[in-house]
Amino acid sequence: MSRIAVYPGSFDPLHLGHVDIITRLSPIFDEVIVLVAHSSLKESLFTVEERSELIRASLGHLSKIKVDSYEGLTVDYMRKKKAQVMIRGLRAVVDFEYEMTMSSMNQKLAPEIETMLVFARPESYYISSRGVKELARHGGSLKDLVPDPVKLALNKKFGSVQRGV
Amino acid sequence: MSRIAVYPGSFDPLHLGHVDIITRLSPIFDEVIVLVAHSSLKESLFTVEERSELIRASLGHLSKIKVDSYEGLTVDYMRKKKAQVMIRGLRAVVDFEYEMTMSSMNQKLAPEIETMLVFARPESYYISSRGVKELARHGGSLKDLVPDPVKLALNKKFGSVQRGV
Amino acid sequence: MSRIAVYPGSFDPLHLGHVDIITRLSPIFDEVIVLVAHSSLKESLFTVEERSELIRASLGHLSKIKVDSYEGLTVDYMRKKKAQVMIRGLRAVVDFEYEMTMSSMNQKLAPEIETMLVFARPESYYISSRGVKELARHGGSLKDLVPDPVKLALNKKFGSVQRGV
Amino acid sequence: MSRIAVYPGSFDPLHLGHVDIITRLSPIFDEVIVLVAHSSLKESLFTVEERSELIRASLGHLSKIKVDSYEGLTVDYMRKKKAQVMIRGLRAVVDFEYEMTMSSMNQKLAPEIETMLVFARPESYYISSRGVKELARHGGSLKDLVPDPVKLALNKKFGSVQRGV
Amino acid sequence: MSRIAVYPGSFDPLHLGHVDIITRLSPIFDEVIVLVAHSSLKESLFTVEERSELIRASLGHLSKIKVDSYEGLTVDYMRKKKAQVMIRGLRAVVDFEYEMTMSSMNQKLAPEIETMLVFARPESYYISSRGVKELARHGGSLKDLVPDPVKLALNKKFGSVQRGV
Amino acid sequence: MSRIAVYPGSFDPLHLGHVDIITRLSPIFDEVIVLVAHSSLKESLFTVEERSELIRASLGHLSKIKVDSYEGLTVDYMRKKKAQVMIRGLRAVVDFEYEMTMSSMNQKLAPEIETMLVFARPESYYISSRGVKELARHGGSLKDLVPDPVKLALNKKFGSVQRGV
Repeated sequence: MSRIAVYPGSFDPLHLGHVDIITRLSPIFDEVIVLVAHSSLKESLFTVEERSELIRASLGHLSKIKVDSYEGLTVDYMRKKKAQVMIRGLRAVVDFEYEMTMSSMNQKLAPEIETMLVFARPESYYISSRGVKELARHGGSLKDLVPDPVKLALNKKFGSVQRGV
Repeated sequence: MSRIAVYPGSFDPLHLGHVDIITRLSPIFDEVIVLVAHSSLKESLFTVEERSELIRASLGHLSKIKVDSYEGLTVDYMRKKKAQVMIRGLRAVVDFEYEMTMSSMNQKLAPEIETMLVFARPESYYISSRGVKELARHGGSLKDLVPDPVKLALNKKFGSVQRGV
Repeated sequence: MSRIAVYPGSFDPLHLGHVDIITRLSPIFDEVIVLVAHSSLKESLFTVEERSELIRASLGHLSKIKVDSYEGLTVDYMRKKKAQVMIRGLRAVVDFEYEMTMSSMNQKLAPEIETMLVFARPESYYISSRGVKELARHGGSLKDLVPDPVKLALNKKFGSVQRGV
Repeated sequence: MSRIAVYPGSFDPLHLGHVDIITRLSPIFDEVIVLVAHSSLKESLFTVEERSELIRASLGHLSKIKVDSYEGLTVDYMRKKKAQVMIRGLRAVVDFEYEMTMSSMNQKLAPEIETMLVFARPESYYISSRGVKELARHGGSLKDLVPDPVKLALNKKFGSVQRGV
Repeated sequence: MSRIAVYPGSFDPLHLGHVDIITRLSPIFDEVIVLVAHSSLKESLFTVEERSELIRASLGHLSKIKVDSYEGLTVDYMRKKKAQVMIRGLRAVVDFEYEMTMSSMNQKLAPEIETMLVFARPESYYISSRGVKELARHGGSLKDLVPDPVKLALNKKFGSVQRGV
Repeated sequence: MSRIAVYPGSFDPLHLGHVDIITRLSPIFDEVIVLVAHSSLKESLFTVEERSELIRASLGHLSKIKVDSYEGLTVDYMRKKKAQVMIRGLRAVVDFEYEMTMSSMNQKLAPEIETMLVFARPESYYISSRGVKELARHGGSLKDLVPDPVKLALNKKFGSVQRGV
């Protein structure tokens, strides 16, 4: 039986904390699907298509990784794909409680799907998509924070030349 | 390649929160090793042998589960067994921070080993080995808290007949 | 002297976590007033009138419960009603800190009013009005999450037939 | 029906944070029992009898307050006394999680008993029995931290004259 | 070498918790710059100019304090001013994690700048700009919460006469 | 006026997280005193003298740093030394709450002394004296965790040759 993990998120945009987690999951599962969420509630900087494209451009070298997007409940998507494990990254206590709630809700909706969590590495725990966007907006250096395709896309959005890279 | 997960802990004694996690992990990995720690620092109620025996007696029906014990660092044990994933259960913020620290330390010691975390289910998040022991000491009911072999062992230790079971 | 408790909130909409708390408070006080807040800051799905109506429809069988709404400070409402105790439900650390702040602020404004807190039960701690709305929006099952009148109202709002109920 | 609340704790020794909570509870219930726990696990500075005596000496003016001690489970004591509400004070996140666990455990053991929580006031949230004992040990001022009878008892234990009182 | 600290924030509006921290920092540094942030993301009640003016009016008596505003990254401002220490106030766990993230991000951007944190005093930890605004909106008393110039400005904005001052 | 900071702790033993903080404080103050606490309550691996000696051996190159030890309250020591600022390192929420309590207690005892907190850097936040001792006990590598003199001292205590250094 093939073991499929789904790693859902907004990825607006992908940053090196995400890349680290995806890379670490790769040897453990037969397939890892990076699932870009249509977050209708909060405004996003990049469209779902742009975000998916940036993930593909940044992770092209990892053969087991697929990129997809979906508009409904993640557990519905996972059932269609026969994926057993939902992966979530943990950075902080605030994350922890939100994830605990979501995990319980999902266990109720789809008891056969397991949520597993991994910690961000110390070197990247402070990287967030929100922080990266604020930094880009003010012309701060994105070195060691995002993959190169994302850096180019952010520069283009904000029309700024990054300093000190 | 065989996917082996190790679930280390004191298990002094095993309770139904542990059993729930082990049962949920069973379909995801080829083998799950429940690893009983020699916790030299804090006094335990049951010996490592008793604790291992209680786990075996309680989980005998799960074919993929192995029970073992080890005195050194868990990552050293895992390297010997070629296990890729260390599993930890999360209940509370206090756990969360301890686990985050241990996960970082273990990543440094053995970067090829991944720590993955699962949440206790809402129905069992409040069960702890310490709580179970205190309850048993005062003759409180252990119903829905521990497997039957553990209930018998606790009754024997504290020489009490459980009420209301 | 009659002991009156006020349980304020948005209740947008009422869910079974709220119902559990209200039910548990009923034997302790002579009267429990469920106070629907006019939360002008965040957009609500249901109007104050709809929310009040849904609470009445769902809790009609509990004789000590009153439902009311108020636009000013809760402590001002309580003084008018000669209510001594404000009840708040606690689910998570994030709640905890917000409630601690509000409790201190209220002690300053009205020292004769006491804030008391109760924990959500394990079976319902993960239920939130926000989660319920997101689930309803995507056609997820609302079984065991909201009372029947709320389920009907959500189905009507989102024009969807709930699955698997 | 008489409304009885039990406020259990070690009270080793009573401090002004405890006194504040007991005073605030007094108008809400018909009787408040301060229940001194036999904490066999950790060493106490004062015996159960000394601790009970210090509470009586410090709270003598509050007519609704009773002081008692018990060695078994608090819920067993409460059932005997027909007390409906267990009161716990909350100061910090660490407390919060412990109390949440205990509350769930007690709901399971005695569903008819409700745990209600109150926050320490800002002026006293930092006072703890442990802190008070450390301060007394090093001759620090106990002003505004403990009632007078406790101050005398601590001075006697540590044979020191408090500074700056 | 002159030791300069920068205390950045929205200050929308300044409250007595801020004033307490600024006053406490004054003896430790040669100069403390209160830096009003242009928070484009969330709507503010007062303009940057109004907020700066209210700080000046409230703190006029403290000679070492300067008030300034800046639109870019705080670390860029600090480099220009040769300020070595960024000061942040801590009230709650939620603050703590946000500050930890920001501190790490800033260490990456400007390793020569140190972030130092101070706790709000118990008497003021529950005061927040958001709470103050909500209170003012509903005509609640602002006594002991904000300096006089801020009280006048809030009264003017909300056209209300404060009660019980 | 000379600005003196005191950085108190058990330092049983000093690790690279401590060293990082001490190094960062050095340019901000005229003198930084590393104060080794006599922690009578918990058993220490090294004596106060050994711990002080290891700090001196590890930090000899930093001219502004002094090492001292004291048995009473830290604020009493600081008054004698005319030190204005107590420095504490923050790693986790659990630390945060303990420090908040201690800071309030110390403000009460000595209002003229300010507690300031700094975050451990991401690369070292997971290093703790307890973790280092456990690792040494089991022969784990201490590379990047402690200064060389401490590594030698731990090897001597546990009579083990470190692996993979």
